[in-house]
Amino acid sequence: MANKPIKIALLGLGTVGTGVYKLLSMRADDMPQIAGAPIEISHILVRNASKPRSGVETALLTDNWNDIISDPEVSIVVELMGGIEPAHTYIKEALQANKNVVTANKDLIAVHGGELLDLAEEHHCDLQFEASVAGAIPIIHPLKQSLAGNRITEIMGIVNGTTNYILTRMTEDGMEFSEALAKATELGYAEADPTADIEGYDAGRKVAIMASIAFHSRVTFDDVFTEGITNIQARDIRYAKEMGKAVKLLGVACNTDEGIEVRVHPMLIPSSHPLATVNNAFNAVFVHGDALDDAMFMGRGAGELPTASAVTGDIIDTARNILMHCTGRIGCTCYKKLPIKKMEDIKSKYYLRLEVENRMGVLAGVTGVLGNNGVSISQVLQKASDTDSAELVVITDTVRERHIRDALTILSNMSMVHKIASVIRVY
Amino acid sequence: MANKPIKIALLGLGTVGTGVYKLLSMRADDMPQIAGAPIEISHILVRNASKPRSGVETALLTDNWNDIISDPEVSIVVELMGGIEPAHTYIKEALQANKNVVTANKDLIAVHGGELLDLAEEHHCDLQFEASVAGAIPIIHPLKQSLAGNRITEIMGIVNGTTNYILTRMTEDGMEFSEALAKATELGYAEADPTADIEGYDAGRKVAIMASIAFHSRVTFDDVFTEGITNIQARDIRYAKEMGKAVKLLGVACNTDEGIEVRVHPMLIPSSHPLATVNNAFNAVFVHGDALDDAMFMGRGAGELPTASAVTGDIIDTARNILMHCTGRIGCTCYKKLPIKKMEDIKSKYYLRLEVENRMGVLAGVTGVLGNNGVSISQVLQKASDTDSAELVVITDTVRERHIRDALTILSNMSMVHKIASVIRVY
Repeated sequence: MANKPIKIALLGLGTVGTGVYKLLSMRADDMPQIAGAPIEISHILVRNASKPRSGVETALLTDNWNDIISDPEVSIVVELMGGIEPAHTYIKEALQANKNVVTANKDLIAVHGGELLDLAEEHHCDLQFEASVAGAIPIIHPLKQSLAGNRITEIMGIVNGTTNYILTRMTEDGMEFSEALAKATELGYAEADPTADIEGYDAGRKVAIMASIAFHSRVTFDDVFTEGITNIQARDIRYAKEMGKAVKLLGVACNTDEGIEVRVHPMLIPSSHPLATVNNAFNAVFVHGDALDDAMFMGRGAGELPTASAVTGDIIDTARNILMHCTGRIGCTCYKKLPIKKMEDIKSKYYLRLEVENRMGVLAGVTGVLGNNGVSISQVLQKASDTDSAELVVITDTVRERHIRDALTILSNMSMVHKIASVIRVY
Repeated sequence: MANKPIKIALLGLGTVGTGVYKLLSMRADDMPQIAGAPIEISHILVRNASKPRSGVETALLTDNWNDIISDPEVSIVVELMGGIEPAHTYIKEALQANKNVVTANKDLIAVHGGELLDLAEEHHCDLQFEASVAGAIPIIHPLKQSLAGNRITEIMGIVNGTTNYILTRMTEDGMEFSEALAKATELGYAEADPTADIEGYDAGRKVAIMASIAFHSRVTFDDVFTEGITNIQARDIRYAKEMGKAVKLLGVACNTDEGIEVRVHPMLIPSSHPLATVNNAFNAVFVHGDALDDAMFMGRGAGELPTASAVTGDIIDTARNILMHCTGRIGCTCYKKLPIKKMEDIKSKYYLRLEVENRMGVLAGVTGVLGNNGVSISQVLQKASDTDSAELVVITDTVRERHIRDALTILSNMSMVHKIASVIRVY
């Protein structure tokens, strides 16, 4: 191949940046055949360019963004810093300088994706972000391409490996949440501040990105209802298991006639559902479309080389577009403006675990309140009890969220109800 | 969108052709936004153009290939006839006339894929064939694109829904093969002549196509070892289950230092393996790459609309390339020439079920023959027995296929061995 190298700049040399550097080195000999030209890293933007990094050519390091943005030879900027700033500014400036962009930054795309895709289109540039959702699993490209003939009505995914690992430990080893979180931290699955993972924010960003592409209508992180897994107890998982169900933290996006539902919360799903068997740090995305029916994509959602796999795929795709003079070939696919459904309006079944007074009439009292609020009951189980209190597990029929909330407000004010211990949605 | 319609011709109006016709009608209003231009079917090639077809505009029907090939307005030929001829000739003529081609034809691509991709490249045309493998599941595009940064070392798939349905019935309902086949025929999962499915030929074609793309080296159907499921008995599946394993018909492609392995045969896999839970007519493809680690893609492998989903995705992608003047953007990716490993040289564990004489010394005789041929044994179980004969199940350690074959030849000539009832490879 006679093509001259395509020069790229990496922004950031953390876990993902290091992975991309390694993977591009591993594939250097094959790139002329795979991408059509050699891929050459010409700059790596880091905070401290004088700090040596093992295995990385020091001459490539720079702490000056101007070195990159002003170099006309750089045709792809690969943003792997994460967070909103300065990534947002750098990506805008790169696109304005007619440079293509590959990014793994879910925080940024989930909030500013629409604006950045518009800017990319204006400059006929690629803006690719496969790695921003579900790590190594190809999902953005398939949704924009092989599945593009479908009306996608549902996307449901385990898109946070940390929480899936925690729930797996709670399920398989009977650990409580805090113990499982400690284990995840010990193994490097959870960060020092695990808030974004365990509160569902990380998954929420990914769901916003997937929903935007699947439903052709911009969804941002603000639109996503998020509820984490900090309140899940080992006994809830045990009771779920007894009912043939697994507890997973799911990102759910549905395209309904009443608008788009986007939410992240723990959910009881049947053990026979393909997502139920996705364990440990694995991610998986389940898609339902009118032509394809059901499909599921499973793989590593994080990690140095798995994330680098997705980033490198985007670099290769962009390189091909550069060589064929067709950058910007697939831009923003949000050509609709669909309303977002309020969380109170979604319909679901619910698993309720209540600690109640242990005396006659309590069951009638609880079910009466539920019934008066339009919540019909599918199943009631009395679990543990002692002299003073009893534990009730109620599975409801499908009801609107607002009705459950109303009923729970009333129940929580009744003296016979000691505690509403758990409320988990049921698929 | 001001773009003028992209005209396409469908060749064939069977199950898949009808599905594509339906799906393009369903998405007609969205196509300008999705693909960048309306997609208009201008011709449908059928054997008898005067036979009316419900729901299809009669004016589109033609039985004359010349109407299509000589029409300069037709820019995509969508071949959905299946089989080698006349599909092969039509596709060649279409490419020679600088028309892009989308096909679902695994028989053709598995044999003539290399030649046709070369022809497409010569004419700067797209030749897309996502639907030729695993129906609705995106696998060709991900391998060529999002996963292109990987050295893929293993692809293993359930890529034939008919046999997976049969094995599921045998597993869940204890049916024998013939009964399960009858059930599959009744439900329309199996064709009148089921040979290509049950003998593994259909899966073999798909494995050849996937191996070519994953390993960047042309593999044709002739290179694939195929063994079907006609000899599997319900008791083999039962014994496998007792050992925590499931029996699946798998297409396996491995990229080893000694060459490429490509084979289709039944296999015992651990019940915990993601492929073990893929049941009924579902397909799934498991991929291992050096960066991505493990991934699995699951979905509908056949059917009118699922297959149409993949074909329509390719039509949309080709339409985008036409509009951006970059057809032929991703052509043949086979830039290596790797040797194909002989089946005798592959290494595997084996499950052997033998009917033997029921007397002292037989076990020693059998294990002696295996040992003398370099086959070491991991497990021996005596299953059923009556006065005359006993049933032995042997699980071997990893050995070369040639050694097992040698041992089985000797065993089959020994009077103490009444029958070698089953030989199944173990993952």
